[in-house]
Amino acid sequence: MAISRRALLRLTGAGALAGTLPALARGAAGSGGMRGLPWAYGALDPDATGDRAFDGYQRGHCMYGAFEAIAGQVAERLGPPFVSFPFEIFTYGGCGVNGWATLCGALNGSAAAFQLLSAKPEPLIDALFSWYEREALPNYVPAAARFRNLPSRAGSPLCHASIAAWCRGAGKRSYSPERQERCGVLTAAVARQAVVLLNAQAAGKVLETGLSGTTAACMACHEKGGALEDIRSKMSCGGCHRVLAREHPTVP
Amino acid sequence: MAISRRALLRLTGAGALAGTLPALARGAAGSGGMRGLPWAYGALDPDATGDRAFDGYQRGHCMYGAFEAIAGQVAERLGPPFVSFPFEIFTYGGCGVNGWATLCGALNGSAAAFQLLSAKPEPLIDALFSWYEREALPNYVPAAARFRNLPSRAGSPLCHASIAAWCRGAGKRSYSPERQERCGVLTAAVARQAVVLLNAQAAGKVLETGLSGTTAACMACHEKGGALEDIRSKMSCGGCHRVLAREHPTVP
Repeated sequence: MAISRRALLRLTGAGALAGTLPALARGAAGSGGMRGLPWAYGALDPDATGDRAFDGYQRGHCMYGAFEAIAGQVAERLGPPFVSFPFEIFTYGGCGVNGWATLCGALNGSAAAFQLLSAKPEPLIDALFSWYEREALPNYVPAAARFRNLPSRAGSPLCHASIAAWCRGAGKRSYSPERQERCGVLTAAVARQAVVLLNAQAAGKVLETGLSGTTAACMACHEKGGALEDIRSKMSCGGCHRVLAREHPTVP
Repeated sequence: MAISRRALLRLTGAGALAGTLPALARGAAGSGGMRGLPWAYGALDPDATGDRAFDGYQRGHCMYGAFEAIAGQVAERLGPPFVSFPFEIFTYGGCGVNGWATLCGALNGSAAAFQLLSAKPEPLIDALFSWYEREALPNYVPAAARFRNLPSRAGSPLCHASIAAWCRGAGKRSYSPERQERCGVLTAAVARQAVVLLNAQAAGKVLETGLSGTTAACMACHEKGGALEDIRSKMSCGGCHRVLAREHPTVP
């Protein structure tokens, strides 16, 4: 699906954040224990995070794999009481929450980690979700992977759409060993990118996100301030509405 | 959308669970602190939970509202260290994760609470999600609500579909004060139902869930063991694929 894109840069406030985050986090660790958000974050190694996420996926599925790879490293640096956080709570999010195939668990877990580790998680979420929609993934394959992992574009943050797109591209079944491993490799790639973004924000860089031109045209009528204003979404409309789009010939 | 339904009862294992849960939880609380899952659960009051979720929604959106209303009460009963859990981590899930309108945050937060509080969260998730899809909601309105809340059927666990269905039914805009309150009332209704289910499981009752007849027909070809096996999902197909369904005249 080749679509034109209009990059919509959003300021993250990361410049201001870089100055205040350590102080906030230190204060939190001193006074509020693990309840004081955000926890103190320092740059992590992206590839090592991806490998740890691939390993965690084998134990607790995609959401746990992504979250534990990121937040687990931070907790180990901070020590008690942070290491007593119940990381296993996030096993619920496997395959879009217990097989419901709603939100990709690797995104769900990364978003939870952003909220835990950043005073400004919103631009991190937007940047990661839009990257996941548009990129051919995985863009990183852990050395422990057994199969050849062909990249595919999900076009959506939803597990259902992501797996369907992969099955079409790979010619494999949705319960095959290849698909099972693919979701572990995807978890690695997503956790890795989440750390790339966290590192960038902590270094004061501006994060990039955006809507496709097609989606921006849909939103102009259907989202906030539009003539209809009858939905809420930041998802790429074409991820689900390819058929419906034929009924909107005026939309580019 | 009136659709025929075939109830697919699933044994929850709740009978066996009722005997083992307290022992597991006590052991966890004694040895593993808050890391030992599940935390000890005892029956909560559904209406009080709904009211607390409505209040939490005002502070931290839908996912936080549902999770904190359930797990917060349990933490207060258990005392330290459980009360130091960072409940605010779940603010990320507001409006289907920072406005992306993916999974309804009230479901996302309730599912996290199930994983924290039950040794067998899977049937709880299935029962809550299918209930959310098929019921006219809200079925409970906190006394603090200001507007008249007309029930609507989401037909999907996704925030985007749920809000679109409500906007169609209510004739209101997606950023109106009425819609904003509606999501708080929905959070109350979902957290209330989550506690109804937790109480039922803790009492050894069998939980009911099911797929619509239409969805079961789709799944027969597309899900595990089907001729195509090219997707994963437990969602009601008709929540998104109404237009596509016209291209499948053989499906009832």
